[in-house]
Amino acid sequence: MGKVLMIGAGGVATVAAFKIAQNADVFTDFMIASRRKEKCDRIVEAIGNPAIKTAQVDADDVEQLKALMNSYKPDIVVNLALPYQDLTIMEACLACGCNYLDTANYEPRDKAHFEYSWQWAYKERFEQAGLTAILGCGFDPGVSGIFTAYAAKHHFDEIQYLDIVDCNAGNHHKAFATNFNPEINIREITQKGLYYKDGQWIETEPLAVHKPLTYPNIGPRESYLLHHEELESLVKNYPTIKQARFWMTFGQQYLTYLDVIQNIGMSRIDEVEYEAPLADGSGKTVKVNIVPLQFLKAVLPNPQDLGANYDGETSIGCRIRGMKDGKELTYYIYNNCKHQEAYNETGMQGVSYTTGVPAMIGAMMFLKGLWRKPGVWNVEEFDPDPFMEQLGKQGLPWHEVFGGDLEL
Amino acid sequence: MGKVLMIGAGGVATVAAFKIAQNADVFTDFMIASRRKEKCDRIVEAIGNPAIKTAQVDADDVEQLKALMNSYKPDIVVNLALPYQDLTIMEACLACGCNYLDTANYEPRDKAHFEYSWQWAYKERFEQAGLTAILGCGFDPGVSGIFTAYAAKHHFDEIQYLDIVDCNAGNHHKAFATNFNPEINIREITQKGLYYKDGQWIETEPLAVHKPLTYPNIGPRESYLLHHEELESLVKNYPTIKQARFWMTFGQQYLTYLDVIQNIGMSRIDEVEYEAPLADGSGKTVKVNIVPLQFLKAVLPNPQDLGANYDGETSIGCRIRGMKDGKELTYYIYNNCKHQEAYNETGMQGVSYTTGVPAMIGAMMFLKGLWRKPGVWNVEEFDPDPFMEQLGKQGLPWHEVFGGDLEL
Repeated sequence: MGKVLMIGAGGVATVAAFKIAQNADVFTDFMIASRRKEKCDRIVEAIGNPAIKTAQVDADDVEQLKALMNSYKPDIVVNLALPYQDLTIMEACLACGCNYLDTANYEPRDKAHFEYSWQWAYKERFEQAGLTAILGCGFDPGVSGIFTAYAAKHHFDEIQYLDIVDCNAGNHHKAFATNFNPEINIREITQKGLYYKDGQWIETEPLAVHKPLTYPNIGPRESYLLHHEELESLVKNYPTIKQARFWMTFGQQYLTYLDVIQNIGMSRIDEVEYEAPLADGSGKTVKVNIVPLQFLKAVLPNPQDLGANYDGETSIGCRIRGMKDGKELTYYIYNNCKHQEAYNETGMQGVSYTTGVPAMIGAMMFLKGLWRKPGVWNVEEFDPDPFMEQLGKQGLPWHEVFGGDLEL
Repeated sequence: MGKVLMIGAGGVATVAAFKIAQNADVFTDFMIASRRKEKCDRIVEAIGNPAIKTAQVDADDVEQLKALMNSYKPDIVVNLALPYQDLTIMEACLACGCNYLDTANYEPRDKAHFEYSWQWAYKERFEQAGLTAILGCGFDPGVSGIFTAYAAKHHFDEIQYLDIVDCNAGNHHKAFATNFNPEINIREITQKGLYYKDGQWIETEPLAVHKPLTYPNIGPRESYLLHHEELESLVKNYPTIKQARFWMTFGQQYLTYLDVIQNIGMSRIDEVEYEAPLADGSGKTVKVNIVPLQFLKAVLPNPQDLGANYDGETSIGCRIRGMKDGKELTYYIYNNCKHQEAYNETGMQGVSYTTGVPAMIGAMMFLKGLWRKPGVWNVEEFDPDPFMEQLGKQGLPWHEVFGGDLEL
């Protein structure tokens, strides 16, 4: 049915690769590319399908990306690289006539800041090129927006209050580890909180607003208000929304570690000049620029290695209040994902799994012609029904609660 | 009276420089050398005496050290550089006929380990060269050994129990900072505890043994058993000692930070290969070897910058139990040092002050001919009386308590 080029070879990409390989009727030709080709080769080896192609590419380099796309000629590029690299990959897609999908919005390297504006600015160019770009098609953003679209389509006349709730009740049995790329994770959490209320964006101090929320099959967990990128598109696409917030759980120990990491200066994203010996054994020293947070990533446990001993589960969903037939309705739609089951299937833990599966389904929606319209789109702007149907089939079953206590 | 070459330009060296300059009748010619000459120049500027000379030297490089010593021809070299550099400086002293004094025992870079053996091995060579080497002449080691020698000389027939107690009840008003070189400080604290009992060395897990001890003018503070280098020489020089221990206070927050720093891998002292852009703006990246703990030092607050807002005081002393005239005697000798007073005099906080002042006095003892005998010696092997007399005069007055409750 179609050729897919996936860029990236981390935990999420590994899951997406397993899922793409499982759906070979849709993905008839598949290439994985990354800065380090050996990481792609390891994924192919884990899947055990030597028909999957691999390639080396520096996703910061538009020319390298173009050369690869021009030679492989994919129908769609699934971008699971770093968020800094969204724009170079979009540029290359435009130049080479490839459709595009990603799971996280562009961020400049030197500023932790979520905003779709950089990518939305490509809308007209994708339209004119007749190409589809699907933004933010992981779990959150991604399924969170599709859940909202599904609620709007089937259950509400008017969505008024939206709370996206993201709980990881897993235990990796390490003192500290992030669930995904530590650099991106720590950037996300240490920025100020932001939520939408009555047409305005309200900023909070980082992690200042929190309360216990009860998650299905898990129980109450302290949940912290964060800014999360899908809020920006959802309040635009559902203008009846009066309030939109995003909540994520963190354990006390995680927050203590985060505090310390910030206070000792290791979460800094500016460059520090540092003199160090060359690794070539020459004994020569050089001055290099080091971003402390990136160096920290090099010494922290690799989130991809957490899977084996990770137990417990994640629970991510949307708690929605609004009007249906003139009456107020509460609605909670969620998926729970067990880390061990994710690991048994793909060798990766649940946080990677819940992001990688929707990325594959988004690409499937495109190749099946169900999500295909020239321009740059957020996921809630497509029909949620075929996506929701696949979600259950592909390992992320979802559940609905009507009229329950949203606690919010 | 004599020429002194001081190597090092950190907080302790700054204090020692102020004190050397204040005692110009003894130190008639004075040079400060360091890897970065501008740091030496800043000290001279702070003191305001342009007669003090400065020089650049890499203390890892014996040839550079020899060239400097041969040209300046000091009577004594005061080594306030890093403990890794003790042996290169001792080698250069032997080659150039210079006497030697330091404040911290040699440690190999790749192993956090206190042991005098490396330096004691130089004893015969210093003897044959007719040169004096004075080891460990800061506060602890240093004054702690001199206090013990003073107690042995004047108050005890037999010292049986020795507890060196080191309290910093200062507040620097930062979330986390070490009192001296963070690299050295964290190495010291994260190694296993060790104490001497009945002829044996007993190892403990790091910081596993602790109890509250009451410090004069401060009150009770949780104190942790650490290994500290002076125990090794003191039990050798006072063979009647049945038990010797070293205790240091840490606040709960400090220990939490330390835990996190260890658990995130930033206290590692092995090299991590890391790719980083050159600082020359060329855009070229290189692979370098980075020791996480050394990099952490580059982002932590510089202990030299803590002085201005540092209040509270240190209290360091020896609690001794033993026999005098057939009866048991308890004895506590200590100095308290206020951070603000140290800062007002030298621009450095109390931890640097209490180390830098004794280093100067040790060099003074040598130049006055009071502590001068060929070989390699620990401070308790010299006459404590003239040193103790200077200690009070030079800003570190001491107090004695007889027959008190040692709590130990």
